[in-house]
Amino acid sequence: MKFHTEYLWFQTQQHREYVRITDKVEAAVHQSGIREGMVLVSAMHITAGVAVNDNEPGIWNDIDQWLEKLAPYRRDYEHHHTGETNADSHLKNILTHHQVILPVTDGKLDLGPWQEVFYCEFDGQRRKRAIIKVMGE
Amino acid sequence: MKFHTEYLWFQTQQHREYVRITDKVEAAVHQSGIREGMVLVSAMHITAGVAVNDNEPGIWNDIDQWLEKLAPYRRDYEHHHTGETNADSHLKNILTHHQVILPVTDGKLDLGPWQEVFYCEFDGQRRKRAIIKVMGE
Amino acid sequence: MKFHTEYLWFQTQQHREYVRITDKVEAAVHQSGIREGMVLVSAMHITAGVAVNDNEPGIWNDIDQWLEKLAPYRRDYEHHHTGETNADSHLKNILTHHQVILPVTDGKLDLGPWQEVFYCEFDGQRRKRAIIKVMGE
Repeated sequence: MKFHTEYLWFQTQQHREYVRITDKVEAAVHQSGIREGMVLVSAMHITAGVAVNDNEPGIWNDIDQWLEKLAPYRRDYEHHHTGETNADSHLKNILTHHQVILPVTDGKLDLGPWQEVFYCEFDGQRRKRAIIKVMGE
Repeated sequence: MKFHTEYLWFQTQQHREYVRITDKVEAAVHQSGIREGMVLVSAMHITAGVAVNDNEPGIWNDIDQWLEKLAPYRRDYEHHHTGETNADSHLKNILTHHQVILPVTDGKLDLGPWQEVFYCEFDGQRRKRAIIKVMGE
Repeated sequence: MKFHTEYLWFQTQQHREYVRITDKVEAAVHQSGIREGMVLVSAMHITAGVAVNDNEPGIWNDIDQWLEKLAPYRRDYEHHHTGETNADSHLKNILTHHQVILPVTDGKLDLGPWQEVFYCEFDGQRRKRAIIKVMGE
């Protein structure tokens, strides 16, 4: 049984940004030498997500506006009594979920034709991390 | 360590449809011969989900109406500039999530009494796939 | 390859309640003797979730109010024709998701600095369960 662990660092230019990481996940699988197994890709923060969706800029604009509509920035969240201002980032993270598990078959990510992996930053402009852990044989 | 991979094909009659697949996942576990491990059940499209919920038709009607309320069909999504009309299907997929991991204990799906697995189609009437991957010993 | 399975029981005092379980998950990892792998933490009910978020009471009040706003209690859900009154608990569960997978590296939960694990009860005041399954080497 083999394991391979990598940490991806991000520092986005925007407060909210969606970064395609499919190639980095594929590279980690290749590096691991694992032919059969699973890869966990998981944000290590509570204000960022990881999601599988289409590599098409329009849909990501739609997703971004929709997240802001369902989980809007507001001043009056109770979390802000701590001095934070990012309660909406926590809620957006709940909507997208913060992780995915990707199947590995025959040494490759076993994804459908339009499935790509994205790191979803909801409180950026600072250094943040995601973990990639490949497990299999 | 053992692996077993299957692909389920769907072609739903409705545009949106919720298909119970618990028996197919159980059959895959049985076929795998795995006694301890985990099963990943994951849609291979970005307009379909996989979720665990109750096998009771009323709740699925409630879920369907609620998804349409939170992530409604609209003409004016930016994604539709590509010629697509299914941006709402992408958003509904984000709400349900596109995958679950089920524990396998003593050769069986280790689910609670009311937990059943469903494939959630948000843009159907065409051939689509989900992957089942069992991993364990 | 090693496996370790535990069941956590809950009986919350409130109808909705968010219970920190990070220590219990860490104890299960320690007990398993696994140094590299993954832990699945999954609610065994369809009216409870498991989520990673901040151990800060204000954000959990924000999350609770936000879940009630997006998935409110109502009398007229179709699921209630069965005699149940908890359709909103099913919908809240969909929003939070019912499970997480946590990476284990060097014998420890490989979490970011603010990540903590919570059991999210949406229909409590009765005995309910979550499963912890550690898998690795």
